[in-house]
Amino acid sequence: MFELTHRLEFSAAHRLHAESLSDEENARLYGPCNRLHGHNYVLDVTVRGPIDPTTGMVMDLNVLAGLMRARVFDELDHRNLEQDVPWLAGTITTAENVAAVIWERLAPELEGRLQRVRLFESASNFVEYYGP
Amino acid sequence: MFELTHRLEFSAAHRLHAESLSDEENARLYGPCNRLHGHNYVLDVTVRGPIDPTTGMVMDLNVLAGLMRARVFDELDHRNLEQDVPWLAGTITTAENVAAVIWERLAPELEGRLQRVRLFESASNFVEYYGP
Amino acid sequence: MFELTHRLEFSAAHRLHAESLSDEENARLYGPCNRLHGHNYVLDVTVRGPIDPTTGMVMDLNVLAGLMRARVFDELDHRNLEQDVPWLAGTITTAENVAAVIWERLAPELEGRLQRVRLFESASNFVEYYGP
Amino acid sequence: MFELTHRLEFSAAHRLHAESLSDEENARLYGPCNRLHGHNYVLDVTVRGPIDPTTGMVMDLNVLAGLMRARVFDELDHRNLEQDVPWLAGTITTAENVAAVIWERLAPELEGRLQRVRLFESASNFVEYYGP
Amino acid sequence: MFELTHRLEFSAAHRLHAESLSDEENARLYGPCNRLHGHNYVLDVTVRGPIDPTTGMVMDLNVLAGLMRARVFDELDHRNLEQDVPWLAGTITTAENVAAVIWERLAPELEGRLQRVRLFESASNFVEYYGP
Amino acid sequence: MFELTHRLEFSAAHRLHAESLSDEENARLYGPCNRLHGHNYVLDVTVRGPIDPTTGMVMDLNVLAGLMRARVFDELDHRNLEQDVPWLAGTITTAENVAAVIWERLAPELEGRLQRVRLFESASNFVEYYGP
Repeated sequence: MFELTHRLEFSAAHRLHAESLSDEENARLYGPCNRLHGHNYVLDVTVRGPIDPTTGMVMDLNVLAGLMRARVFDELDHRNLEQDVPWLAGTITTAENVAAVIWERLAPELEGRLQRVRLFESASNFVEYYGP
Repeated sequence: MFELTHRLEFSAAHRLHAESLSDEENARLYGPCNRLHGHNYVLDVTVRGPIDPTTGMVMDLNVLAGLMRARVFDELDHRNLEQDVPWLAGTITTAENVAAVIWERLAPELEGRLQRVRLFESASNFVEYYGP
Repeated sequence: MFELTHRLEFSAAHRLHAESLSDEENARLYGPCNRLHGHNYVLDVTVRGPIDPTTGMVMDLNVLAGLMRARVFDELDHRNLEQDVPWLAGTITTAENVAAVIWERLAPELEGRLQRVRLFESASNFVEYYGP
Repeated sequence: MFELTHRLEFSAAHRLHAESLSDEENARLYGPCNRLHGHNYVLDVTVRGPIDPTTGMVMDLNVLAGLMRARVFDELDHRNLEQDVPWLAGTITTAENVAAVIWERLAPELEGRLQRVRLFESASNFVEYYGP
Repeated sequence: MFELTHRLEFSAAHRLHAESLSDEENARLYGPCNRLHGHNYVLDVTVRGPIDPTTGMVMDLNVLAGLMRARVFDELDHRNLEQDVPWLAGTITTAENVAAVIWERLAPELEGRLQRVRLFESASNFVEYYGP
Repeated sequence: MFELTHRLEFSAAHRLHAESLSDEENARLYGPCNRLHGHNYVLDVTVRGPIDPTTGMVMDLNVLAGLMRARVFDELDHRNLEQDVPWLAGTITTAENVAAVIWERLAPELEGRLQRVRLFESASNFVEYYGP
């Protein structure tokens, strides 16, 4: 079994704010992340499977890249994650939650091959999600 | 003459919008950057001068780092550049303009040694400013 | 159990072309990768095992690095993967297939400790192989 | 299940020297690493767990970062690993052994969530430890 | 005066071979680079000028990026520099020469603002050209 | 005129300590850098000149790389800069001073073409020296 990963970057604004908490609790819990700010996010999507002997590939890399572009980049890049993205409305946009929602968007089109969604908020912090 | 550079990163939200232009002109000119988004900015500040023979340094690196932290990081990190930063109010926050304003904030405390402000918006785009 | 990884880079030319397909099918399947081009490949080889209490090491890093140099770098660096490398002749040189062949070359000398071969074609695309 | 990683860097001096071996054996085994030298180490600590639905986080990233700073950075940064760090005294400071000791220091405070300690000595060599 | 830089990457095959030299001289002079191989080239193009007060930009970054894509990327990416690119025919494709030819292609469209072409062949070797 | 740069890395221990100052002054001036520690230094050496029309090169990159290896890497790598390197004895090993001494070692062999020595102590701090 092989794992094939494609990476893309997108730039977005966000803030961490839990509706179920008071402003004081939000400020204490999330610290500066409770304020509106932004990141150059880096997204690594990994598919897993055997090699197709005809093509020598786990899957067509152009298909994977095109799917990531259409389902993620085109909807998140240069946007405010809380306000501009219907499928993130009401979600606390921690890297954990964003990675999980990206999984949900990509998995149905990857026929059981999706193995890992890794999302870097910065060079110092990232999340890896292996699915439900 | 030697040049000494210190680097720091900050995460901020911004959008490009010129008050003097119509919404249509802004959208056409700035494209997706006209929408609120954000970056992990990387800031390189360079000072230039001879080595102090007693210390072997152009200047005390801890002083430079402390100045960058106090004058830039503490005011821009995890903020919306247009709305949260008084000294950027009314400025179109292109990398060029932000670099120039950072120069103005740092130069008075660096006694003529400030040589270059370099600001990366992303891995693909950066600006270098050598002063007025 | 510990995993120890050594990284090296090599520069090589290649193209993706399946003998079993027509020229039109090759062009459609592989897109620009069907044309001769090249990469700075990055190869990460990971060995897994317990620490030797005498040395504090999973294995001698110099031995691992020397093996990677002799078996991979010296044969692939600054070469055309399809035409200059006997052990790749007839292989479609996708990252998947190259990683698998590198595994076959290194595994017999690593006494069951080889854990992962990771091969980056570029900053955006890489493959991980965990063995047959 | 999600995995959350925080990264920090520290700069330290060390040498590889096994008390149980002769000077000749040490020189042959460790090569140049038997001489005092140093690194900019990069440490990735990964915790694993479900998302807390109230906060959207596996754990509070500020708590993880603070723990890594207090237990690792403040004790190793700008020090000689063999001579200045009581909890490394008598340890051969291979990346394997340092990673294992860092695991031991962090695990008791992470309530079973510690998943991986990854330690880079350089851009070319790193170790991953998944615990005893 | 400000300097604005945009970066892009392209993957290409090449070999160093001087028609004016014998095969033996080519092999001795260029070493392994005399064999066909390839790189992930990184190209930084820098323009210099004052800020347009209306837009806050040295020049429209989308225009610069589009020009680099049309004049460089679309013609060099996934190609053999010696055989597939008419404007490199007969040129020894050292990084120096490729940078100079890229300058010639871009300068006429940049109205005197082109300041620097920087071309990385690998993480270890790059060339900077400031024009004739 | 072209500028050609080659990069190499070396790992070394050092501490900052001025003989002319008291222990208290050294501790206050250099902070943690007054303690023995170490770095993965990155060294960029740049030569400047016209292209040789026969070879297409500013200078033979293998000659430059070999010179950097012999004069710098082989003498500094995996060593204590203060104690193991005769030509650094008595020098306060700030990045400024080390860059200047590297310049002095390389310039006589580069026939007036040496343009810049850039030395990174870490990802956050580096020095550039353009000669006396």
